[in-house]
Amino acid sequence: MKVDGKPYRTIWLAPNGRTVQVIDQTLLPHDFVVRDLDTVEDAERAIRTMIVRGAPLIGAAAAYGMALAMATDPSDANLTNAYGLLLESRPTAVNLRWALDDLRALLAPLPAAKRRDAAYRRAAEICDEDADICRRIGENGLALIRQLKPRGERINALTHCNAGWLATVDWGTALSPIYQAHNAGIPIHVWVDETRPRNQGASLTAWELGKHGVPHTVIADNAGGHLMQHGRVDFCIVGSDRTTRRGDVCNKIGTYLKALAAHDNGVPFYVGLPYPTIDWTIEDGHREIPIEERGAREVSHMTGRTASGGTETVAVLPDGSPAANPAFDVTPARLVTGLITERGVCAASEAGLLSLYPEQSRAA
Amino acid sequence: MKVDGKPYRTIWLAPNGRTVQVIDQTLLPHDFVVRDLDTVEDAERAIRTMIVRGAPLIGAAAAYGMALAMATDPSDANLTNAYGLLLESRPTAVNLRWALDDLRALLAPLPAAKRRDAAYRRAAEICDEDADICRRIGENGLALIRQLKPRGERINALTHCNAGWLATVDWGTALSPIYQAHNAGIPIHVWVDETRPRNQGASLTAWELGKHGVPHTVIADNAGGHLMQHGRVDFCIVGSDRTTRRGDVCNKIGTYLKALAAHDNGVPFYVGLPYPTIDWTIEDGHREIPIEERGAREVSHMTGRTASGGTETVAVLPDGSPAANPAFDVTPARLVTGLITERGVCAASEAGLLSLYPEQSRAA
Repeated sequence: MKVDGKPYRTIWLAPNGRTVQVIDQTLLPHDFVVRDLDTVEDAERAIRTMIVRGAPLIGAAAAYGMALAMATDPSDANLTNAYGLLLESRPTAVNLRWALDDLRALLAPLPAAKRRDAAYRRAAEICDEDADICRRIGENGLALIRQLKPRGERINALTHCNAGWLATVDWGTALSPIYQAHNAGIPIHVWVDETRPRNQGASLTAWELGKHGVPHTVIADNAGGHLMQHGRVDFCIVGSDRTTRRGDVCNKIGTYLKALAAHDNGVPFYVGLPYPTIDWTIEDGHREIPIEERGAREVSHMTGRTASGGTETVAVLPDGSPAANPAFDVTPARLVTGLITERGVCAASEAGLLSLYPEQSRAA
Repeated sequence: MKVDGKPYRTIWLAPNGRTVQVIDQTLLPHDFVVRDLDTVEDAERAIRTMIVRGAPLIGAAAAYGMALAMATDPSDANLTNAYGLLLESRPTAVNLRWALDDLRALLAPLPAAKRRDAAYRRAAEICDEDADICRRIGENGLALIRQLKPRGERINALTHCNAGWLATVDWGTALSPIYQAHNAGIPIHVWVDETRPRNQGASLTAWELGKHGVPHTVIADNAGGHLMQHGRVDFCIVGSDRTTRRGDVCNKIGTYLKALAAHDNGVPFYVGLPYPTIDWTIEDGHREIPIEERGAREVSHMTGRTASGGTETVAVLPDGSPAANPAFDVTPARLVTGLITERGVCAASEAGLLSLYPEQSRAA
């Protein structure tokens, strides 16, 4: 996607053919800074400190982390070390383990001298594959968007958190259909949930939509229900951290509340997701998905730009008031209108998912 | 209610018998400052700049504003001036007009020399009446709370925005039953919705609960649905800015989303309200209540304490991203388990409300 007219991905190889470059997402939306990753330790730190975040991007960064490790020392010992180091950087990220297992299986049988080039090649492939998956999610979602309203009429989407290109390598998941619609000339406007407490909507989604030129308006997380009651939202679209076999969707805290409001007002509620986030081993999201409890400081403090141009973190709670911070919730499949994947659109149900992924049938 | 062990109201007469004193709510939770109101202009400014806020407290402050005006100049001309000045301070506040009409009707027939004392007396009565109404809401709510769980078991409430004693003269509306339960020794804990964008939950509700010693935990507005899914909320209780004849509840933006989640999870959803906030002339809240759209800056900026001890306002949106800020939403009566008023508890319906207020029957 574009930043002020210039196309970017979230991760790419520098012209020197060795250094990996990423957009530092901890500084957005206040500063746009590209970071160099020169070692596997740099890659580990970038994942751990959320310079890069979003499941697909974490996988890509881990793959490049393995390449950086092999560029320094392609020995068996370092292959094992790099795998272990990167795996610990974000313990719950499914794509992280997937990418690391993929690289290790590729590299382990190779002679040490061939590992560096093979690792860089595979990391680049993983990036291209992710961009391609996201592009196809966008095309499948675009077909839905075209059906919502007569040609030329403004369409209002609502999204929660950030499932845009910043969370992936390019295009995004939930935002990919929106970019495709915008690029196709459909007059689309996006209500962007602020997404407390980490504000990924206000800081990342608003930033990337704005930089690409997509009309959008930031709202408090509280406002979406009211907008739906008054016919000001034509569809909701969110991403998914994990989708169960039956179509329950685990996503950023607050997603469930928007799905309830969409259901209550007859507004379609779509989820954009790439196949690696489908967990075929889990059926009931409510009972089977443990929810990460994050630190209270994300609730009690806010960071922003001061009038003098710097950034400052301020405390917003009374001294002594504790805070709780569950990071995700589970939206039951009954509230989801459809799942949009790289293979097509299906009902949020086991039958729906199996219609797109028949190879996952238990009889198969 | 108590602040660090000392009983307070939100508004009171100073020992000199003329100056009115209020807690400056714009500085909470960071600083606790008492402001002197010496003139009607002081009172008008306190209402307009939200040093005092909350419908009942605005009414009380307006009544004292009339008294301050009469202390300076009890002429007919000044009575008219003061009425007009105060009425414009918060144009949509129902209690403001009610209190001003009450004072004007009392004062206009009196000789000028008697107006000052009569105005102070009536303002004090309005304060006492409000405190009494809120105390009775609390007693009626306490009876409900006692039925929720066996004696001695911890009860978890969830509240949105601030409908506590800071919004009234004492006790509060939604929080009055919680204070009564706490004072009665019931182990009650309150999930406090942050309540973006103005953060009245994080800044006011958390502050007053903490100062009175009520256990509480602040959460992002997004978290309540998840907590209800997991049985961690025993009941919700909120206030109401306006309740229609049929029991629709207009309250702070986001209330509707919590009511949907409560309904979806079988959690009782109560509304605490004093009779002046019932609008008998309106039936359908969705169609008939206009919703105030407030400034984008409440969404785009946040104020808090810096590490060095001062307060700072920071910008949290990307430059150029617009924000929208609807201030209230309407929760349809079908999602409300019960209305708690100073007269008792009733169903959120015309029949329910008329059972408590038979004098409002159209046949009557």
